Amino acid sequence: MRTGGVLNVIGKLLILLSFFLLIPIPFSIYYSDGMVKAFLLSSALGALLGGILVALFVADEDLGFRDGFAVVVLSWVGLAFLGALPFYFSGQVPSFVDCFFESMSGFTTTGSTILEKIEVLPESVLLWRATTHWLGGMGIIVLSLAILPLLGAGGMQLFQAEMPGPTKDRLAPRIQDTARILWTVYVLFTLVEILLLMLGGLTFYDALCHSFATLATGGFSTHTESVGHFQSVYIETVIIIFMFLAGVNFSLHYQGLIRGRVSSYWKSEEFKLYVSLIVVAVVIIMVANAFGGIYEHIQDNARAVSFQVVSILTTTGFGTADFDHWPPVCKVLLVSLMFVGGCGGSTGGGIKVFRFLLFFKYARLQLHTLVHPKAVGTIKMGRVRVPREVKVAILGFFSLYSAFFIFASLLVTATGVDIVTGITAVIATLNNIGPGLHLVGPAQNFGHLPVLAKCVLIFCMLAGRLELYTVAVLLTPGFWAMARKPVFRWQQIKNGKRDGVS
Amino acid sequence: MRTGGVLNVIGKLLILLSFFLLIPIPFSIYYSDGMVKAFLLSSALGALLGGILVALFVADEDLGFRDGFAVVVLSWVGLAFLGALPFYFSGQVPSFVDCFFESMSGFTTTGSTILEKIEVLPESVLLWRATTHWLGGMGIIVLSLAILPLLGAGGMQLFQAEMPGPTKDRLAPRIQDTARILWTVYVLFTLVEILLLMLGGLTFYDALCHSFATLATGGFSTHTESVGHFQSVYIETVIIIFMFLAGVNFSLHYQGLIRGRVSSYWKSEEFKLYVSLIVVAVVIIMVANAFGGIYEHIQDNARAVSFQVVSILTTTGFGTADFDHWPPVCKVLLVSLMFVGGCGGSTGGGIKVFRFLLFFKYARLQLHTLVHPKAVGTIKMGRVRVPREVKVAILGFFSLYSAFFIFASLLVTATGVDIVTGITAVIATLNNIGPGLHLVGPAQNFGHLPVLAKCVLIFCMLAGRLELYTVAVLLTPGFWAMARKPVFRWQQIKNGKRDGVS
Repeated sequence: MRTGGVLNVIGKLLILLSFFLLIPIPFSIYYSDGMVKAFLLSSALGALLGGILVALFVADEDLGFRDGFAVVVLSWVGLAFLGALPFYFSGQVPSFVDCFFESMSGFTTTGSTILEKIEVLPESVLLWRATTHWLGGMGIIVLSLAILPLLGAGGMQLFQAEMPGPTKDRLAPRIQDTARILWTVYVLFTLVEILLLMLGGLTFYDALCHSFATLATGGFSTHTESVGHFQSVYIETVIIIFMFLAGVNFSLHYQGLIRGRVSSYWKSEEFKLYVSLIVVAVVIIMVANAFGGIYEHIQDNARAVSFQVVSILTTTGFGTADFDHWPPVCKVLLVSLMFVGGCGGSTGGGIKVFRFLLFFKYARLQLHTLVHPKAVGTIKMGRVRVPREVKVAILGFFSLYSAFFIFASLLVTATGVDIVTGITAVIATLNNIGPGLHLVGPAQNFGHLPVLAKCVLIFCMLAGRLELYTVAVLLTPGFWAMARKPVFRWQQIKNGKRDGVS
Repeated sequence: MRTGGVLNVIGKLLILLSFFLLIPIPFSIYYSDGMVKAFLLSSALGALLGGILVALFVADEDLGFRDGFAVVVLSWVGLAFLGALPFYFSGQVPSFVDCFFESMSGFTTTGSTILEKIEVLPESVLLWRATTHWLGGMGIIVLSLAILPLLGAGGMQLFQAEMPGPTKDRLAPRIQDTARILWTVYVLFTLVEILLLMLGGLTFYDALCHSFATLATGGFSTHTESVGHFQSVYIETVIIIFMFLAGVNFSLHYQGLIRGRVSSYWKSEEFKLYVSLIVVAVVIIMVANAFGGIYEHIQDNARAVSFQVVSILTTTGFGTADFDHWPPVCKVLLVSLMFVGGCGGSTGGGIKVFRFLLFFKYARLQLHTLVHPKAVGTIKMGRVRVPREVKVAILGFFSLYSAFFIFASLLVTATGVDIVTGITAVIATLNNIGPGLHLVGPAQNFGHLPVLAKCVLIFCMLAGRLELYTVAVLLTPGFWAMARKPVFRWQQIKNGKRDGVS
């Protein structure tokens, strides 16, 4: 690993974030919430820290795939750290672990909160909270469509062909090209949603915050009752549509909307399964709610269920109803959907629809082989035959996922948290959803959990968001054995040459 | 499928079982529990039903691998049906679904019971209950070491090389050879355990019933408080040892004990992982119980925990303590162990240790590939390279397992059962353990569940026990497309020839 080059990138990202930390200032002035100094201080600290890293270490244009793992993990941790400062300086969240939890929940687009009452925070801080979502979502799109397919982690190499932009060996130019194209879509969607929400009567501030949280499939709202606060069918419909869009592979949006090939959507097996899952889940839960007598009118049932299913499957986590009071079968189905998550290449979390699609194709192939022992079976995704490495990658992903899940559940329940709360807290964070069940249910929050449990959940958000392998690779000794001692800027100048090939 | 030949085998098995149905009669006479007529009637019905099948259909020596699926599933269902009669005739269990539940729980060596108070049943019926375990266990050893490896289901082909006896193409002779060898071990273990338990002061009846339930990793006891009833460290120790042995691959016992190659045990990676899992789980749970202040004395803690861990991991389900009152982390760990289960080729249920071993080897391989992209990775089990088909088989197994698990959980909770009870009931039956948590916890039973939930759980026991694929294959249309119309005996005689090659 080219340690110096990696730290230089982190430094630049911190400086970039310190600019974004200035965005809430006009809002703070407008709402006179007294947070101008806090944001200036946070921004200055970010610029200082980033500046030091850039000053110490030279940029390295030869950063390779392996360095990508370190860049990804360290930048998410670094940005979440810097992003936690405004919460801390607001004085409303006394514990820094809580601030870090909230910020990590933002940047990983999870949406779990430690706040019992959202409105206690100043408006500008809530805007910052939504901004962490939006920036995290930008990072995720690039991570999942530009970086991970090249690294070949967890079966993401399937999306290699789908990446817009030219294929190059080096990481940096590749990321820039793909990012430019995909971010165009992301920004466009955000602008349209802001407009539509404002047409529905929301203030610019509320529209902005909710659009940020929707497109990132994050789930932070500016209100304790989440989207339920607005009591508006129109607002809920707009948000359902944009949550749905955010859960789709962004390269499909690029093909379908920007390049005008709308048929691309229906050619994608993953997209079809994603839509089917939503439809089937909505129908089942509506029937169960009807039998359980939860809603008097079918419209209320349809409205609450469709919102909740899309919110959960896309791992957004916005709420309009407390599904912890729905019949047990609804909760089991919603928790099952939590594991599925959005499509690959979307801002949604979870295991991802394409992995389940492949997973069940293997079950069907094995059944077919048992009935017809002489048949030679292959697995295809669309028209493309799934390469052999993907089998190992998918198997490995599911096993790593189970390992993370079981260890995290053991650690969280070891702090004394009850079994339903503990396990669904892990599910909600590892899949970047937001709310779980029982004491971390939609009407509750994560604030009351023991500090150790919060630390484990912070790790879950990070690991889940970065597709596990990125984090797991950094935990292997083999990775660090290849890390070089960082070369400082003055050492390179003295040696009069750039760092060689790794 | 050679339908006639399959039905002939089922008929013979029913006749065989009708002989076993006579075993409890001397006990009924000894205890004067008035069940002689009931057993005679059950036996007669079995002989009649079996006789009709044998009379109608000619034996078919050309039964192939595919017919094995039908034989396996139909025989378990048929035997469980016949085995349910004594419960029904006893008059103590008025619902036939409950009787079938109890009998299926016996033959699948699950050990879940619908009885609130075990002792209400006559002694001879309780002996029959234990006998269903023992016979089910015999079936499982042959299924997992002689039939499934040849069928190549769910990765069981790994055990092909380990099967004692010659390799032949046809199913019947192969099964006979393997069965003879493995049943010797099974019967020997049973006899030794009976002796050891009687030395500890148990009556012949109690020793027999508990040995049957131990070797089959079943879990039916003759007492409501299960093994806890005896309040004896010696008895618990004997049962721990034999539960442990029953959870080991029986071909290892054949190599290690009968052929005298004791080193075989330590050469098996699966065996080593199995032992390590027990040790690690015992230590963790003891520590958690100590912090939770559950036991006053460390000996009581060690005794209860080691019994419970071995009982759960081997999927026996005997109890000496109500672990539903242990700290949450212990319950999460025990539930995790429920999924693991015993070694392949043992009488234990669950996903099996060897599948987890492979599963995590794939995660390690994927991590290694990410750090060293040019390295060529292979997976080995012992010294043998794991064949390519096993990758698909294992992936397929895990996905089929998740599908069964989620659907069953949805169905059970749809009947209104709460989430913890419903999900752990599915876990306890699909992995053939016995007790779950909450309302189906160790001190509770399955009797109060709705009938529909019981039916789903009966299916879970069957599917779990028969390694899912056996049952799933029978649910595919492709399998039945190849089924022939059954040829009756008189048709064959008229045609003057035997049925041709399939």
